[in-house]
Amino acid sequence: MDQTTTRVANAALRKLDNVSGATVLGCLMKRGYVHTWMEGVRPLASGRHLVGRAVTLRYLPARPDLQQRIARGAEGREFNETPRWDALERLGPGDVLVADAMGRSLTSTGGDVVYSRILTRGAAGLVTDGAVRDGHRVTAYGFPVFAGGSTPTVGEPFILPYSVNEPIQCGGVLVCPGDVLIGDEEGVVVLPAQLADEVADEAIEHEQMEEALLEHVMERRISPKTFYPFNDETRRIYEEWKERRGG
Amino acid sequence: MDQTTTRVANAALRKLDNVSGATVLGCLMKRGYVHTWMEGVRPLASGRHLVGRAVTLRYLPARPDLQQRIARGAEGREFNETPRWDALERLGPGDVLVADAMGRSLTSTGGDVVYSRILTRGAAGLVTDGAVRDGHRVTAYGFPVFAGGSTPTVGEPFILPYSVNEPIQCGGVLVCPGDVLIGDEEGVVVLPAQLADEVADEAIEHEQMEEALLEHVMERRISPKTFYPFNDETRRIYEEWKERRGG
Amino acid sequence: MDQTTTRVANAALRKLDNVSGATVLGCLMKRGYVHTWMEGVRPLASGRHLVGRAVTLRYLPARPDLQQRIARGAEGREFNETPRWDALERLGPGDVLVADAMGRSLTSTGGDVVYSRILTRGAAGLVTDGAVRDGHRVTAYGFPVFAGGSTPTVGEPFILPYSVNEPIQCGGVLVCPGDVLIGDEEGVVVLPAQLADEVADEAIEHEQMEEALLEHVMERRISPKTFYPFNDETRRIYEEWKERRGG
Amino acid sequence: MDQTTTRVANAALRKLDNVSGATVLGCLMKRGYVHTWMEGVRPLASGRHLVGRAVTLRYLPARPDLQQRIARGAEGREFNETPRWDALERLGPGDVLVADAMGRSLTSTGGDVVYSRILTRGAAGLVTDGAVRDGHRVTAYGFPVFAGGSTPTVGEPFILPYSVNEPIQCGGVLVCPGDVLIGDEEGVVVLPAQLADEVADEAIEHEQMEEALLEHVMERRISPKTFYPFNDETRRIYEEWKERRGG
Amino acid sequence: MDQTTTRVANAALRKLDNVSGATVLGCLMKRGYVHTWMEGVRPLASGRHLVGRAVTLRYLPARPDLQQRIARGAEGREFNETPRWDALERLGPGDVLVADAMGRSLTSTGGDVVYSRILTRGAAGLVTDGAVRDGHRVTAYGFPVFAGGSTPTVGEPFILPYSVNEPIQCGGVLVCPGDVLIGDEEGVVVLPAQLADEVADEAIEHEQMEEALLEHVMERRISPKTFYPFNDETRRIYEEWKERRGG
Amino acid sequence: MDQTTTRVANAALRKLDNVSGATVLGCLMKRGYVHTWMEGVRPLASGRHLVGRAVTLRYLPARPDLQQRIARGAEGREFNETPRWDALERLGPGDVLVADAMGRSLTSTGGDVVYSRILTRGAAGLVTDGAVRDGHRVTAYGFPVFAGGSTPTVGEPFILPYSVNEPIQCGGVLVCPGDVLIGDEEGVVVLPAQLADEVADEAIEHEQMEEALLEHVMERRISPKTFYPFNDETRRIYEEWKERRGG
Repeated sequence: MDQTTTRVANAALRKLDNVSGATVLGCLMKRGYVHTWMEGVRPLASGRHLVGRAVTLRYLPARPDLQQRIARGAEGREFNETPRWDALERLGPGDVLVADAMGRSLTSTGGDVVYSRILTRGAAGLVTDGAVRDGHRVTAYGFPVFAGGSTPTVGEPFILPYSVNEPIQCGGVLVCPGDVLIGDEEGVVVLPAQLADEVADEAIEHEQMEEALLEHVMERRISPKTFYPFNDETRRIYEEWKERRGG
Repeated sequence: MDQTTTRVANAALRKLDNVSGATVLGCLMKRGYVHTWMEGVRPLASGRHLVGRAVTLRYLPARPDLQQRIARGAEGREFNETPRWDALERLGPGDVLVADAMGRSLTSTGGDVVYSRILTRGAAGLVTDGAVRDGHRVTAYGFPVFAGGSTPTVGEPFILPYSVNEPIQCGGVLVCPGDVLIGDEEGVVVLPAQLADEVADEAIEHEQMEEALLEHVMERRISPKTFYPFNDETRRIYEEWKERRGG
Repeated sequence: MDQTTTRVANAALRKLDNVSGATVLGCLMKRGYVHTWMEGVRPLASGRHLVGRAVTLRYLPARPDLQQRIARGAEGREFNETPRWDALERLGPGDVLVADAMGRSLTSTGGDVVYSRILTRGAAGLVTDGAVRDGHRVTAYGFPVFAGGSTPTVGEPFILPYSVNEPIQCGGVLVCPGDVLIGDEEGVVVLPAQLADEVADEAIEHEQMEEALLEHVMERRISPKTFYPFNDETRRIYEEWKERRGG
Repeated sequence: MDQTTTRVANAALRKLDNVSGATVLGCLMKRGYVHTWMEGVRPLASGRHLVGRAVTLRYLPARPDLQQRIARGAEGREFNETPRWDALERLGPGDVLVADAMGRSLTSTGGDVVYSRILTRGAAGLVTDGAVRDGHRVTAYGFPVFAGGSTPTVGEPFILPYSVNEPIQCGGVLVCPGDVLIGDEEGVVVLPAQLADEVADEAIEHEQMEEALLEHVMERRISPKTFYPFNDETRRIYEEWKERRGG
Repeated sequence: MDQTTTRVANAALRKLDNVSGATVLGCLMKRGYVHTWMEGVRPLASGRHLVGRAVTLRYLPARPDLQQRIARGAEGREFNETPRWDALERLGPGDVLVADAMGRSLTSTGGDVVYSRILTRGAAGLVTDGAVRDGHRVTAYGFPVFAGGSTPTVGEPFILPYSVNEPIQCGGVLVCPGDVLIGDEEGVVVLPAQLADEVADEAIEHEQMEEALLEHVMERRISPKTFYPFNDETRRIYEEWKERRGG
Repeated sequence: MDQTTTRVANAALRKLDNVSGATVLGCLMKRGYVHTWMEGVRPLASGRHLVGRAVTLRYLPARPDLQQRIARGAEGREFNETPRWDALERLGPGDVLVADAMGRSLTSTGGDVVYSRILTRGAAGLVTDGAVRDGHRVTAYGFPVFAGGSTPTVGEPFILPYSVNEPIQCGGVLVCPGDVLIGDEEGVVVLPAQLADEVADEAIEHEQMEEALLEHVMERRISPKTFYPFNDETRRIYEEWKERRGG
């Protein structure tokens, strides 16, 4: 699958910094993208907003012969899982590592030593439907972490990293390399790269619209019953709100 | 089912303000009411105590023909889900919206715009075994929210509100309109309306009893081994405690 | 099973006070102990580190005839569940009550009155794969509590305590009386008594090693890619780190 | 919800006698009816095809006061659950009892004595997302039974029948009174009453089409790769097949 | 727990040979024994009725030190799991092996070589909430097998047999040594030893009663609506039925 | 991963025709291959033994842009899922299609028209952790089918085929192209290609050994207690058995 044509610009990412994943998801639903929210993937630390381009990593169930093939390290270093390191080294500012652990929320994909590389590469964060080892130490680095869980166990007997930057599933959702991930308290929404720019603009306007409507109902203590779908009344409220704010 | 005969007075609700759901549940067990705790329904924000009379809302699985029938809105406003608005408009101080979402903890029953109406009606809170959309925005309103989860997804393709103020299930428990809901860190207990007054009194005394017994064992660093079931010894400890407090 | 030969000294427990369960688990994996982490057992309050010797308590499904046999209390006190009290009275400083509730994470094993005894005995904490009744009141005592959940319900109709200080399962893991339990944000790891001393030493060194390596990569903003398995390079980094710290 | 306008004729039911639930579901998908298959509802005896109009029965969680209200029997006959009997007495040839047991696949909705009434009313069968008590005795009556499971337990302590012939959920799917249920090895598909006639015709043609295509590929040992979506080639094959059969 | 006082006679077992587990469960409910049906334990081969006295075997999670302790075999035979053999050697005609595998329905408790001993001891059957290895070979022996599942995997890395003839849980239900197990298509019901005789008699009469009532409604094509709870009418029908049969 | 070096000969497959998956799994455990049994993948029709080389097919979650990319069919034929057809066309005698549906046991991977191609290619069978549409029609073809389930639903809105003959997971187990799949009543075991020959020989001998031991214990009505691990005694019994058979 050719994913190289679209690279979402940092400017587009910044537009999404204050947008809720729920709003992005609403914009995607309208375009027929109905499965964009990862099930079972939750923030390990609350209050952090994630926006980043996906660098994808795919895990497979472990097997002795697979382990030998993917090691490719120096002599005797059989746990040096090169695909994982390949993925980490590709990360830069605005990028997020997205690891398909086949939904095994109790199985570690890495811990604080390995994931220190996300910090030192200046990347945006980490998303996996597997677990993070010693998650409370990884969240201490400060970047947003979304995972199936946190665990003290080691992953190698169960799963192994296999390939980098191909389309994967994560949390039951398709993630293509370069797709934008939006993470907040409600988890992670995947925004396909080619839609990032237009959805970002639409999402910002939608959030302003709802801010305007909420101010309106709160001031008057009235019901928002007639607001959906948006209509002449809501557009009028929104225009007045923009005027007041602009004034 | 005729539920109109009993309306729990606000005074009875206030008596329950400092009572644990666990204590109410214990009182109900003694009366043969064994299933009164909602499974899978948790506080979205901790540290908030809910006491309120149920206004019930029942969801059903979505279907195109059902959607047309329940819209009943103006021309073309097909998402105007009237039963949900009917329920919200019935709320007043001391009331809580209880929504049977058939236990679908990942499916939204509404978000911050819709549930602003709970705030502007001055109602006590929200309980559902479904999800709340963008829950962290709804909890920002300050009222207690108990739900199966928080999600960025929209509910309309999956569930639709169907009827108001009939008996429902929520979290596997029967809720009749007017029943009292007690919510705390451990979730939600349903207190049938006709028992509210007598259970409130009994629960307050039970909590005092346990407070007395706990003070007693803590001071003396002894075991509460002989306290259950309550007996002459525990009554003596309780009487002394009341005397000390009263004196 | 003869467990009386090894009693882990308090000094050994203290060595584990700053060690992560993940590190202990890693040491145990190397020795062929592969199932040592309790699934589904989580801290009810975060930020508390548990280290303690297990006093075990085994629950069984409730049945009227079983209830009569285990009551052994005075006349009419049929809820006086003696095995539970036997277990609580055996607790002392450095001990932790570990209750096998057959993985029933919604079923209460006890509440704030019963578990006040853990506090007044000066014990280290509580671990169960069942629930704690009114968990937010039990965590208020300050000792670490790890459980399958918190509930307002009562356990007697469903489970009954049956025996004390025999090998049990808890969270799917074997716990022998006297085994050491390590609890932190990621849950509970079981360290067999006879290995406690040697694993404690190894774990401390391993944590220092990783601290040294992490400082190294953070300062230089480099990848820890070549660190596993430990090798000449990592040993050199570690030795330099110890020297600097010692100097 | 007004369901009385459409009553599916027996002739329309007979058209569906040889049609697979999968084919009906495909026809419904094209019309935007995407959730029509009951999850977790399976045939208790294989090889029986169900086609019938729904008479719906809704269960609620049991509670002592609910039990008193729905008994409405003679003095002391408190287990005479009238709504269940109301539903059974409405059954006639071509009708099927559909019981919403809130997805409790282990909880009995009735056993061989109660469900003998389906046989003596000459009805088409039984569908529930709850369990059937002593299912192997009920299947011995010969009519098709689709359920969440079979159990020796009794349902009264857990669920109670509450209302008849209102819209319900069953297996996560909406069922309106009068809707047509198609049951086979793969479980139950719900066909809305107002679509029954047109879908029946379309389904029969679709099945003939696929029969023609399968004969074609089997004879020639070729791939059906170019058959979907249907096109000029497939129509030609179908027309030839009809001619041969007609000839 | 002293279970040696009651040994259910073979004559009492024979009385239960034609009784449904559902009927036994109903008799136990009336006596306050509410949890007697094993969840998740199903017949591996259908059409076989099990009645037998429990010889209990308790498994625990595997651990290297536990394995050494329970081996007790000759030199080097570390997989000779003595508690399992102890249990098997205690079996005689009318006995059933009941293995508590902690509900791990995918984990083997033994296969065709080990369980050949049930056949050669002339025992009544096998019940476990774990799995049977190569179940289709074990069912070929002809005795009834009830299990959580059938698997090709080996159990030793996960569970180990630990003790014999103590009270256990199996399928979430208490089983004391000597209790009677009734197994049929709906799974397994546990009948406490001390109640076996009286429940057997009551169950036989109950089944005759229902046979009489069913014949009555089938002949007349009428509703059994007024039959529960049993009353003057049902007793009259029953008496007539007995007379006819006796005559 | 280079899988082209080993192609398991048909002669090796034939050696496995009478071998149980359990026996193969035992041989693999000894070689450190511990995860080789697919969880949740069951025979849709019983009594059929599968042995075949894997042609792998990987599904991903559906998304509109992915659907466009993988269609690659003629104009307007957007459901022509080429990777699935690519996989089917690679099948020959002795091959089995293994489809990674990400464990979605309710989601269709294909139905009777598509899977007719397995029959007309003369392939050995079908394995998937997804569902088969109208499974009872697919099993009518006669080849062995192992799947997560059978369903009337269509898969396209949820999953799409993406790539062929790369390593996949299926039922939680690694499957590399060319690996041998053994399927029987207990499900599917994966035998890595490079081990197929040696494991086949060992498995046949192991099954003969157990046949000999079982005959021995059955004739003498004795316990197999001392048989594991195999030893001088078992070897003697086996040699005698071979002699008798050979003579």
